[in-house]
Amino acid sequence: MDWLNSSIATLRKALDAGQVTQGALVEAHLARIAERDGEIGAYVHVDADGARAAATAPVAGLLGGIPFGVKDVLDVAGMPCEQGSVIYKGQVPPFDAGSVAMLKQQGAIVLGKTATAEFAGTAPAATVNPLDTARTPGGSSSGSGAAVAAGMAVFALGTQTGGSVLRPAAFCGVAGFKPTFGAWPVSGMLPAAQSFDTVGAIARSAEDLAWVHAAMMRLPAPGATGDLPVIGLCRTHLWDTLSALSAGAVEAARELLSRAGAQVIDLPLAPGFAELTQHRAIVNAFERSGNTACFGAELDRIRPESREVFSRGESIDGETYLVSRRALDVARAAVDTLFGEAGVLLTATVPDVAPSGLEKTGDPRLQELWSTLRCPSIAVPFGHAPSGLPLSVQLVARPNEDALLLDVARQLEALREG
Amino acid sequence: MDWLNSSIATLRKALDAGQVTQGALVEAHLARIAERDGEIGAYVHVDADGARAAATAPVAGLLGGIPFGVKDVLDVAGMPCEQGSVIYKGQVPPFDAGSVAMLKQQGAIVLGKTATAEFAGTAPAATVNPLDTARTPGGSSSGSGAAVAAGMAVFALGTQTGGSVLRPAAFCGVAGFKPTFGAWPVSGMLPAAQSFDTVGAIARSAEDLAWVHAAMMRLPAPGATGDLPVIGLCRTHLWDTLSALSAGAVEAARELLSRAGAQVIDLPLAPGFAELTQHRAIVNAFERSGNTACFGAELDRIRPESREVFSRGESIDGETYLVSRRALDVARAAVDTLFGEAGVLLTATVPDVAPSGLEKTGDPRLQELWSTLRCPSIAVPFGHAPSGLPLSVQLVARPNEDALLLDVARQLEALREG
Repeated sequence: MDWLNSSIATLRKALDAGQVTQGALVEAHLARIAERDGEIGAYVHVDADGARAAATAPVAGLLGGIPFGVKDVLDVAGMPCEQGSVIYKGQVPPFDAGSVAMLKQQGAIVLGKTATAEFAGTAPAATVNPLDTARTPGGSSSGSGAAVAAGMAVFALGTQTGGSVLRPAAFCGVAGFKPTFGAWPVSGMLPAAQSFDTVGAIARSAEDLAWVHAAMMRLPAPGATGDLPVIGLCRTHLWDTLSALSAGAVEAARELLSRAGAQVIDLPLAPGFAELTQHRAIVNAFERSGNTACFGAELDRIRPESREVFSRGESIDGETYLVSRRALDVARAAVDTLFGEAGVLLTATVPDVAPSGLEKTGDPRLQELWSTLRCPSIAVPFGHAPSGLPLSVQLVARPNEDALLLDVARQLEALREG
Repeated sequence: MDWLNSSIATLRKALDAGQVTQGALVEAHLARIAERDGEIGAYVHVDADGARAAATAPVAGLLGGIPFGVKDVLDVAGMPCEQGSVIYKGQVPPFDAGSVAMLKQQGAIVLGKTATAEFAGTAPAATVNPLDTARTPGGSSSGSGAAVAAGMAVFALGTQTGGSVLRPAAFCGVAGFKPTFGAWPVSGMLPAAQSFDTVGAIARSAEDLAWVHAAMMRLPAPGATGDLPVIGLCRTHLWDTLSALSAGAVEAARELLSRAGAQVIDLPLAPGFAELTQHRAIVNAFERSGNTACFGAELDRIRPESREVFSRGESIDGETYLVSRRALDVARAAVDTLFGEAGVLLTATVPDVAPSGLEKTGDPRLQELWSTLRCPSIAVPFGHAPSGLPLSVQLVARPNEDALLLDVARQLEALREG
């Protein structure tokens, strides 16, 4: 049995049935990390002893015995939390982040900390894409995407302020879920821009993500899926930025959902939504510069990409920020109307496969649109380019409709395997 | 000149004119702390050396030379941050909270950390009300309210999840301001319940708070006030909980605003808003229990009031939480309609003067209603009970209308001084 490519449901059954032990699962992951992570650089800290010790407890809880990774902007008690920056070198928090603690309470086992772009921003981590080491894994949750894709964790926590969970998931060929703004615990998370920051997760499938969401929200284990709601195909004002391959993946997903009986309708974005990209950039820079105002004396040791955002933010006055904040509020109030009859939107996750080069983590605009609107969103792997690199489609739901979103994503996965 | 009772505008002018030095101002505050804080217990940590060192820099910035206190759930680099709890004993963060850093950038000088209820919750700090030491100062920003009221800081930062800024301000006879949700930087703040947590401030006047807001938001110094908008008198479903004195203060404020030419209209809350108290309690407990899930092993060392909230939160399932989250979203979407023609609402801050006893910090419901709706709100001292204890009225604006709110509060203050 390939324990490194099994679903959480399969693993939980095997653990309960004694077909595998937590210890064996942890060792298999540690061995894979030893074998592959020298090249990939997904982890910045591996806690082999801690994971082995946790594996001696009885298997209990929704995620009992499931090994996971934690993006290094989320605290794990006793492990360094360095935020992808030299200025946090050696900082060790006393307590787990709320999100980590909720998963531990459900029996999940921390393997270590995964690499992040500096401050969950744009200065890339030293992680490569496991599917092609000359390509970016995406970011800022770069290590979480790469770790899951390379079988070095069953799932991994990330954070998304723009597109930092869904983009690495898409580029690494795995699934990435950003819940509704504020739904998962936020303690022990480095704030980036408070209007958008959301803890999320990356896993091999939407089904696995439904298990993680259940653990985080005190919901029962995922059950049978329901009827497909009306699906709104939303091309957005960014459709022109898509490669034919990415656009084709969305059209293919539409076709599958339609053949499965879903009513699929076209949902054009109202013109005002196109301006969100601009307003979001202003709010993001202003808030990041406020949250990091304390780095003044350390500024030389911060990477140029981060410095550039902070100084852009510092140059924005409060009135300009408020104009953009108000514009975001207006757009959020229009989300319900945008969805209309549709329960879930179908759109693109990324413009194309992972770009070559490691200097940039890719274009966040397609993902960040929905972070800006505080909607839950999920990236579902969907086909491959002729090069073999993965493609992805994005599903989006109204705020607080995370369960519906995960349900539809699971059905799309099943149809894809169909 | 009484430097311990002067406005920020007066102090800034005196500093620029060389009538007082930053050093003298810091020494005056340290002397007052030495004289009074043994009895009051507003500070949990005073950094005399740091404040003296900061006072040697040239006076510069909007708040150049103004000494302030920081609630002990907000980080100040190099000072302990103990969250009102023994389990954080001796923790020293490496960087300032974003809010603290923004104020330092504008020249303000940190005097020390002010006492907080445990985790900004309900287990009271060891602070007494400076106006009557047998009474609560309110909470959870207890030390911030008491420090300002006793002349031990020009202003102090607080945080509000329910009523933690406005209530201590009201009970201590000073002004307290909670900005729009998410407007001030949040880094370095202990999360309590992420749907509501907001950094705010307490000062002797709304005018001083307008200066702090300007520094935090990169806005110009407060200028002349504008025309009074339509004022909506909103008695809320909690009007019956008010003493005749508190209700009388609101009516007196209405009268003054009306005589000054403002149109004052009655704005009853729609029936749905009355349920917010209940829904807010569910969201608050659920989120607090998630954010503090990491305290499991330390639970015995946590105070009973905090434990009670956490275990209540743990007993709430995700579906129940979501029902309440959705109800809050519906109410927030109705805020604009609630205000209607009114630019600012007038209502009560607290049911009565500060209650006797130190075991409880008072009733949060009148303040938390507006935190729940993410509106900016301000407590303005307004008259006194026959006992001499201060009364207070609350003004509230639509989200992002903080400037209008502060403007009206400054006018109400001026009218009150007659």
